[in-house]
Amino acid sequence: MAKLILDISTSLDGFIAGPNPGLEHPLGEGGEQLHEWAFPTRAFREAHGESGGEDSADSKVVEELRGRVGATVMGRKMFSGGHGPWQEDPNADAWWGDEPPFGHPVFVLTHHEREPVTKRGGTTFTFVTDGIESALEQARAAAGDKDVQVGGASVAQQYLKAGLLDEIGLHVVPVLLGDGVRLFENHLGARAPAVECTGVIESPNVTHLRYRVVR
Amino acid sequence: MAKLILDISTSLDGFIAGPNPGLEHPLGEGGEQLHEWAFPTRAFREAHGESGGEDSADSKVVEELRGRVGATVMGRKMFSGGHGPWQEDPNADAWWGDEPPFGHPVFVLTHHEREPVTKRGGTTFTFVTDGIESALEQARAAAGDKDVQVGGASVAQQYLKAGLLDEIGLHVVPVLLGDGVRLFENHLGARAPAVECTGVIESPNVTHLRYRVVR
Repeated sequence: MAKLILDISTSLDGFIAGPNPGLEHPLGEGGEQLHEWAFPTRAFREAHGESGGEDSADSKVVEELRGRVGATVMGRKMFSGGHGPWQEDPNADAWWGDEPPFGHPVFVLTHHEREPVTKRGGTTFTFVTDGIESALEQARAAAGDKDVQVGGASVAQQYLKAGLLDEIGLHVVPVLLGDGVRLFENHLGARAPAVECTGVIESPNVTHLRYRVVR
Repeated sequence: MAKLILDISTSLDGFIAGPNPGLEHPLGEGGEQLHEWAFPTRAFREAHGESGGEDSADSKVVEELRGRVGATVMGRKMFSGGHGPWQEDPNADAWWGDEPPFGHPVFVLTHHEREPVTKRGGTTFTFVTDGIESALEQARAAAGDKDVQVGGASVAQQYLKAGLLDEIGLHVVPVLLGDGVRLFENHLGARAPAVECTGVIESPNVTHLRYRVVR
C-alpha cells in the first residue's frame, strides 16, 4: 500500500516555521531560511518551471521525493493560514498562487465545506470535512501507486498519534530560529511510536535524516 | 581560549530527558533510551571503570569528548534534581553516587551556598552562587588547556543566549519520547545565533551532529 510520509525542513532547534506566519511571511519570520538549501537545486527549479540549477546530493533528495509522491494531505492552516468560514478568510485562494508547486491532488482538512479548486500545473485542492482517515483514503486513491505526503506539523502529529504515518524525513538546517512553529509541539505522550533510522545524507547546507515508523 | 561546548543526546522529537525525572528515573521516564548508544562502547565502559566494549564510531565520539573536556558546568537541577535550601533537598548527595563519571571539576550553579564536595575518581563539585559567567570563569581556570562542557538544557540555553557557547554536539537518537524535557524549551527569540554544521557521523544507533556557533 502507498506510504504516508512526512518530509519537512526543520531548524536545529526544532521549528518548521518562524514566528508570526502570514501572507507576507508564509513560513513565518526567518522561516524561508529552512528551505534555502532546496532553492538552488536542479530538481527544485525544474519543479517550479525553471531550468538549470545544481545537480547536487540535495537535488537528488528533492527529486526522489517528487518522484514518489502522488498526493498531499494538509491542514487548513497550511492551505490558507486561516480558520473559520471560507468567506471570512482573506487568503482562501491567495496563499498558494495560481500555479502551486504540488502538481498533484491535494486534500485539505477543514471544518468548513467547500467545492474543489483546480489550479494550473496539475494541482487540485479537495476539501475534506470528515477527518484524517477519510482524507488519507481519498489521497491514497488519488495517488495511485505513489505515496502520500502529509504537509504541516499539526496534521503530521495527528497521523503519527493515530498510527498512520509510515516515514519521517527531516532536513535539519543549521539555523537556530529561536521561536516559531515546532515540528513536535503537540506532545505525543505514550502514543509515541518507535522509529528506525534508514538513512543519513550529509551536504554542506543541510543534513537529511530519514526514519521508518515501526508498527 | 578553552571552548564551551554542549554535547547532549536528544530524541528525534527534541527531548533530552523523559517526563517526571526523579531519583528512580534521573533521566525521566524512558530517558535512558537516549544514552543506550553509548553504553556498549569501549570508551564509555572505560570511563566507568569497565574493560571491553565495542571499538565503534560511537566509541570514538565518546572518547574524543572525554579527551577534550577538563571541567563541567551544570545547573542545580542536573546536580540533584532539586531546588531550594540544601538541607531540604533529599538528593543533595545521592544523585551522582560516590564515584561520579566526570573525573574532573564540576561547577554547580545554585542560589544556595555550599562547601565544595570531593568524590572518588577525580570529581569535585564546587557550588557557584554568583552566576553563569563566574561559573564559566572558574571552570575555565580548572580545565587548564582543555574545554569546558555545559550540562543540562536550561543552563545551555542561558549560555547560548549570553553568547558564550562555542559548540553544540547533538547525538540524535531514533526515538520519539513524546514528552519530557526539551533541549530548546526556552525560546531564544531574536538572540538565536548563527550555527554552522562541522560534522556528521552516522552510526547504526544514533546520528552525531556537530555545530559551531558563529559569533
